[in-house]
Amino acid sequence: MFLSSLMPLEKVLNIINNVEVIKSREEVSIGDGYNRVLAEDVESLLNSPAFDNSAMDGYAVRAEDTFGSSQINPSHLKIVDRIGAGEVSNITLKSGESVKIATGAPIPEGANAVVMEEYTIENGNDLEVEYSLTPFENVSPKAEDFKKGALILKSGKLLRPQDVGIISSSGHHKIKVFKKPIIGVITTGNELVMSISEIKEAKIINSNYYTLKALVESAAAIPNVAHCNDEAENVSKQIEEFLKSCDAIITTGGTAISKGDVVVDVVGELGHVLVHGVAIKPGKPFGFGKINNKPIFMLSGYPVASMVQFDVFVRDFILKMQDIYREPQIVKKIVSRKIPSTLGRTEYIRAKTDGDMIHPLKIKGSGVIRSMVESDSYILIDENNEGIKKGEECDVMLYDSLKV
Amino acid sequence: MFLSSLMPLEKVLNIINNVEVIKSREEVSIGDGYNRVLAEDVESLLNSPAFDNSAMDGYAVRAEDTFGSSQINPSHLKIVDRIGAGEVSNITLKSGESVKIATGAPIPEGANAVVMEEYTIENGNDLEVEYSLTPFENVSPKAEDFKKGALILKSGKLLRPQDVGIISSSGHHKIKVFKKPIIGVITTGNELVMSISEIKEAKIINSNYYTLKALVESAAAIPNVAHCNDEAENVSKQIEEFLKSCDAIITTGGTAISKGDVVVDVVGELGHVLVHGVAIKPGKPFGFGKINNKPIFMLSGYPVASMVQFDVFVRDFILKMQDIYREPQIVKKIVSRKIPSTLGRTEYIRAKTDGDMIHPLKIKGSGVIRSMVESDSYILIDENNEGIKKGEECDVMLYDSLKV
Repeated sequence: MFLSSLMPLEKVLNIINNVEVIKSREEVSIGDGYNRVLAEDVESLLNSPAFDNSAMDGYAVRAEDTFGSSQINPSHLKIVDRIGAGEVSNITLKSGESVKIATGAPIPEGANAVVMEEYTIENGNDLEVEYSLTPFENVSPKAEDFKKGALILKSGKLLRPQDVGIISSSGHHKIKVFKKPIIGVITTGNELVMSISEIKEAKIINSNYYTLKALVESAAAIPNVAHCNDEAENVSKQIEEFLKSCDAIITTGGTAISKGDVVVDVVGELGHVLVHGVAIKPGKPFGFGKINNKPIFMLSGYPVASMVQFDVFVRDFILKMQDIYREPQIVKKIVSRKIPSTLGRTEYIRAKTDGDMIHPLKIKGSGVIRSMVESDSYILIDENNEGIKKGEECDVMLYDSLKV
Repeated sequence: MFLSSLMPLEKVLNIINNVEVIKSREEVSIGDGYNRVLAEDVESLLNSPAFDNSAMDGYAVRAEDTFGSSQINPSHLKIVDRIGAGEVSNITLKSGESVKIATGAPIPEGANAVVMEEYTIENGNDLEVEYSLTPFENVSPKAEDFKKGALILKSGKLLRPQDVGIISSSGHHKIKVFKKPIIGVITTGNELVMSISEIKEAKIINSNYYTLKALVESAAAIPNVAHCNDEAENVSKQIEEFLKSCDAIITTGGTAISKGDVVVDVVGELGHVLVHGVAIKPGKPFGFGKINNKPIFMLSGYPVASMVQFDVFVRDFILKMQDIYREPQIVKKIVSRKIPSTLGRTEYIRAKTDGDMIHPLKIKGSGVIRSMVESDSYILIDENNEGIKKGEECDVMLYDSLKV
């Protein structure tokens, strides 16, 4: 009947992927840079290190003065200065001289190597060196890490701790990053209440409110969540309010395929509905539209369906708004029992991995949240596939691989 | 010389693992539960769903009344009530009757199945049914998701969006989670300045300040960072201050092995130094101690060494304070060129993966942050191994697998 009007998954993904992604930038202190996405190329403002420096606590010497030295046949040098960390010696070292030096301190002029403390004996100003050094031994050369003007990191990099470290060490205190988008989430449904104390008769708790908030957070964005009853006027008002403050909107409920339904109708009036109904299972009642060039993802009211729809259609879009581009990570596993599948529908079977094996869950139903809780992955069955036999290899997407 | 005094890695890990881990709990709203660790078993306060309900928009009927119905031979029923989402019908359905019903609404008494709208034609109060239903078709039974009193999730669960969803749907508004520990970070070093404008002569930028802050954040904890010069009195004061407000302390710098060094000496005076010097590379100058039963991780001042030490010694401890227990995820890769290694030292070689291959980086030096930036993993070479030949399989730890 209506099945013929369901769009194939690939077509829907194409429509969503062709929507212009609007990215904003902001400046943050490098101390707040962890896990943010760089929105500019970063070039070094200095040489690092800025000078040849000692890699060890020890004595700066002329390597030539130590040639042939050993425990049995030590050489003797005069200690002419002592410099700690952050200090500099104004001495120009001559043959037979040494300067006591801390790790990281600049090598005095005239010296070309550092002998480790462990290979020396200090007697007043006499230094016994029991080791034969080669020139530049234990010297970290100037600009060894990077040169002034060098490209340190490119725009688009998701910053790890070491990336934050190198940016700060290259002289930057502020950096441009992509703004975390604000995602308006509107749950709809007259049957939904926010807590157990409000439950009576046909009411149930609005778990989508919390699940969607967490899903948006798991995509590194900022959720702004509201609940609305099924009145078109209220849904319309809430969408218009979120259009002012949010970069994209997600709704749940009111997306039934067979008829006009409140959310899809409202979006159709305020803007354009580009998708309504997708050939996936679970998650068929999905809509996608645009209002004033802002994307509206219309998810099912069913908890499981809305989670699957978020994973399939929404997450990557939110990540792209932050300049994060990812390929889905598909792994191969051996299925532990037969899975029948409907031709013409892409299926997302909740499953649990077990080494190289994978067990499809027996619990079904788009409302059974437990099926998402007891599983750790989806088995993907494409629309041209009638199912998978026991012992066959299948494509698996791990939930953990979806997190940023 | 001093090498004989370096502790083997395994012994150090044993010492750290035997330190009592103190965990605190706090109550948060379920809306703030994402990515937190549950600190109590959660049992359901209700049946979900609380009643047999309709899985579809359609008509509640007695399945027996539709037996044999088809498009050619439809049955006719009388519509005696209409209920939307969140509404309940007080009617007891008799043979030949139907109730228009929204998805999720309770099945009226007397009905045992729901026919989808798509298989019906409505004419006033007459309903034409073109489909033969089996009893319980399109009915989601009461407590299908979970029963009142059922164990929903166990203490120790790192909460994903679906876990947040099921907890809320089981009637809980607040949950107990493990507190994020506050980690005091003290960077030391007279040579360190906080910004490029302060650089002169032998000074360098204190990148450890930012790197360690980010590393603590990457372990889901709360950093509290301060910088101190190398005066024992100041280091001592800062440690004592952080002992009041923090759950553990990390220091950088002042851990040289060959001699007394400021941080290790101060910790020795205030409490007990249990480890000083570890047979790993990079990262040898590592110290571990306890003051008033709080752990103090003393890391090298060298940026790369301190990052490796964090990954090897600190991260898992911080995670355990949040009740997160993990096995290191080691994968196998083929090494693209020979790696020599020192017997008696566990080595962490910065490397870059490339499919099944792995390329060890040629840049070395404990101060060269670029080696951490250009790599995505460690090749692990244990202390009894003299190196790996080109084309051999090796153990690899991916940086991304270390994140929570």
